[in-house]
Amino acid sequence: MGIKVGVLGARGRVGEAVVAGVRDTEDLDLVATIDRGDDLHDLITAEAEVIVDFTTPDVVMGNLEFCIAHGIHCVVGTTGFDKERLAQVEEWASQHPEVGVLIAPNFAISAVLAMAFAQQAAKFFESAEVIEFHHPNKLDAPSGTAVHTAEGITEARRAAGMPAQPDKTAQSLPGARGADVDGVPVHAVRMSGMVAHEEVIFGTQGQSLTIRQDSYDRTSFVPGVLVGIRNVADRPGLCVGLDSYLGL
Amino acid sequence: MGIKVGVLGARGRVGEAVVAGVRDTEDLDLVATIDRGDDLHDLITAEAEVIVDFTTPDVVMGNLEFCIAHGIHCVVGTTGFDKERLAQVEEWASQHPEVGVLIAPNFAISAVLAMAFAQQAAKFFESAEVIEFHHPNKLDAPSGTAVHTAEGITEARRAAGMPAQPDKTAQSLPGARGADVDGVPVHAVRMSGMVAHEEVIFGTQGQSLTIRQDSYDRTSFVPGVLVGIRNVADRPGLCVGLDSYLGL
Amino acid sequence: MGIKVGVLGARGRVGEAVVAGVRDTEDLDLVATIDRGDDLHDLITAEAEVIVDFTTPDVVMGNLEFCIAHGIHCVVGTTGFDKERLAQVEEWASQHPEVGVLIAPNFAISAVLAMAFAQQAAKFFESAEVIEFHHPNKLDAPSGTAVHTAEGITEARRAAGMPAQPDKTAQSLPGARGADVDGVPVHAVRMSGMVAHEEVIFGTQGQSLTIRQDSYDRTSFVPGVLVGIRNVADRPGLCVGLDSYLGL
Amino acid sequence: MGIKVGVLGARGRVGEAVVAGVRDTEDLDLVATIDRGDDLHDLITAEAEVIVDFTTPDVVMGNLEFCIAHGIHCVVGTTGFDKERLAQVEEWASQHPEVGVLIAPNFAISAVLAMAFAQQAAKFFESAEVIEFHHPNKLDAPSGTAVHTAEGITEARRAAGMPAQPDKTAQSLPGARGADVDGVPVHAVRMSGMVAHEEVIFGTQGQSLTIRQDSYDRTSFVPGVLVGIRNVADRPGLCVGLDSYLGL
Repeated sequence: MGIKVGVLGARGRVGEAVVAGVRDTEDLDLVATIDRGDDLHDLITAEAEVIVDFTTPDVVMGNLEFCIAHGIHCVVGTTGFDKERLAQVEEWASQHPEVGVLIAPNFAISAVLAMAFAQQAAKFFESAEVIEFHHPNKLDAPSGTAVHTAEGITEARRAAGMPAQPDKTAQSLPGARGADVDGVPVHAVRMSGMVAHEEVIFGTQGQSLTIRQDSYDRTSFVPGVLVGIRNVADRPGLCVGLDSYLGL
Repeated sequence: MGIKVGVLGARGRVGEAVVAGVRDTEDLDLVATIDRGDDLHDLITAEAEVIVDFTTPDVVMGNLEFCIAHGIHCVVGTTGFDKERLAQVEEWASQHPEVGVLIAPNFAISAVLAMAFAQQAAKFFESAEVIEFHHPNKLDAPSGTAVHTAEGITEARRAAGMPAQPDKTAQSLPGARGADVDGVPVHAVRMSGMVAHEEVIFGTQGQSLTIRQDSYDRTSFVPGVLVGIRNVADRPGLCVGLDSYLGL
Repeated sequence: MGIKVGVLGARGRVGEAVVAGVRDTEDLDLVATIDRGDDLHDLITAEAEVIVDFTTPDVVMGNLEFCIAHGIHCVVGTTGFDKERLAQVEEWASQHPEVGVLIAPNFAISAVLAMAFAQQAAKFFESAEVIEFHHPNKLDAPSGTAVHTAEGITEARRAAGMPAQPDKTAQSLPGARGADVDGVPVHAVRMSGMVAHEEVIFGTQGQSLTIRQDSYDRTSFVPGVLVGIRNVADRPGLCVGLDSYLGL
Repeated sequence: MGIKVGVLGARGRVGEAVVAGVRDTEDLDLVATIDRGDDLHDLITAEAEVIVDFTTPDVVMGNLEFCIAHGIHCVVGTTGFDKERLAQVEEWASQHPEVGVLIAPNFAISAVLAMAFAQQAAKFFESAEVIEFHHPNKLDAPSGTAVHTAEGITEARRAAGMPAQPDKTAQSLPGARGADVDGVPVHAVRMSGMVAHEEVIFGTQGQSLTIRQDSYDRTSFVPGVLVGIRNVADRPGLCVGLDSYLGL
């Protein structure tokens, strides 16, 4: 028998992909699919060991309180967790110290690894820039992931006592050198046909290192969710971000 | 016997690469190397059929007047040709209608092809952006080549009656979407270790097309100069830009 | 009013994408959707001017005979056209010289352009290789498109009298240098998550040129079909391949 | 005062780049340049604290014996170290436990990081392939670095108990799927104009991760040598490979 999994938000677009992913995975056992209007007690009846929550900010806290109280581990991709909410979850978890809760803003393994590698590489290169590519319907530029990546690079450069990046640009059209995110130039490309892609480029004498992540469709978060499901029981307490689950 | 070639500006860094390129090429015969202080009549004595001029704006016009008058074909990479200068060269050439003169701002074949392909592709894609990458000592951003590429794309889009590029960006950090060159976003990356690289990206439903050009060292103009030398005798009159020599 | 379009094979996966594409396009007017069991005379009733055929080899010939006979232009993506079939279509078309018929094996504009540009660029570079990337369920390696691209490069190199590509490899693991397609190395990558991608790389002194095509999903043929619909009436007779419609 | 550095093999092409690199670096002090015919005792007179050895297999062992005996730390890029030689160096080092010796086959930081990241990422992706690109004068295919990278990926996949890579290829031209290095396909491209480049591609559901390293010229090992010089005194004993110096 595999790990017994319940999916909350099961009839949303993301939830459907999670449901399909759990169903297609041998060592996992889909025992409950819950959505608006369904009763959380179905999780108890179905003996769910782990739930995956891709719901909405208005219901996720209730879901977590219930699941933690009933000893069910939680893998959460729902957005809207600020410090207050995280503190609340931590308190619930502290009362059930055997329960693991993973809350991650990004389950795309390739994106999480790209950020982690960028941070590791940063101190060895004089130059670092980020280019992200998305479909033209995206509202913000640059993407949150790209900003986060740039901040990680800056942090690593500061910790290593590195000077500002070399750049002798004297004449520039406005915007040519990208957005300045803490000293790291970030460029946002909007391209029909593309989905979500990020490239981090590092350069030093005679060489460059490029770390590129491509998301080709909206199911790219599934493998990361599966990593979460398989490992959450071994990591009691609240954990924010997939990083530590990836051994980074 | 190969084509008899004289090199003007032979002891400059660029000239030295041209000299080496001509020497290493079987069907070409290096007969004269001229630099500041040398006598142009050496070209006559050496029976040069074609000259390559990588000199400076202050001497190039004298060189061309002399060579055209003596029936020597000219391949010119020296900068500083404005409309007046081109008109003057055209007048000289008109008096010696058998002489070919090629004046090109860019002899890097890969860069010239990239621009030409970009212009051909432009009308089939909703989105088009340009990213250029250079060493951090470059003074201008974006590069002249990138601006020129963007202008070519715009021209092709206008001729095809295309609307503006789709872009729903509502929240943006300043510079994130690049420099706006006639409606085409252009991004400039400055990276230690890099030389000169350009990427043109096109996107439409379900697909993208990327044309990328990399210059790895400062001799990348040599193959284009050789194309010029081999073909200039067959193209009498003044020709500006390597494009037409490449059959584009 | 836009061009009146009928879609044959309208309920297949490809046909559905065509139907959606025509519906979403202002200057086109979807007047008939036909599939197995429907009557072709619906096209007449609906006054279709152009049909798009993504059916199967067993019905496409009947469809074309009917449409050509009724003066309806045809844009055909159905596979299985050998010389005999093309000859038959040509004969039908010759009896209705005002009718245009476009039969294309590949409607992905980015792929067709990539092949055309590769052929144009080939004679200017000493080295040329092709890398294609597909999902791991693909049965053949390399892809037909990659083989076709390599053949186009070879043809251009031969026409220009170029020697074999430089390659001093003396010690090699079997397969390392790819498949030899007419002298052009072709490498096939099979990668979970990827869809269909092709990269053509050219190199000569100090520089390289890369032409890359990415198909992100199975609707990437739609823009090419729309180009066909809009132009087929202006190109009477049989035309094979989208190339000439792209002005290449 | 900076670290006092002596360079052995100082008049070779690689040594010259090291000499220039040390000279251009503020916190380092070039005190001796040694080559064939020079006396190693110059290092003592000059009070060298660290030596860099890019010599040849026939002299490097003598150099190391001398330097270790005199308490000088060693950063070594010379090739030809087999198990016996490493054991000998270890013995010498054990007699002078304060001395650090770094012997690294590859000082290109970007290449070393690419390999390390590939190994970290391997267990999260169903598919992994390596493509390396070099100038056409290279004798072996694939490169040693690419083989080493593939072996690292295989090791990580085995440790994680992963199955073979998915690949439904049924019809293949010989070589299309690359060289099989322990189950990881490795493709070698030979391209005029290119220098040394490696791309590691990973794929899983809906996404891919690409780690690419570009060496643009023959000085790309210098930053890695500088990392070695600055840290070798803090790492007594023999250390093989730059990895541990990069915190990997």
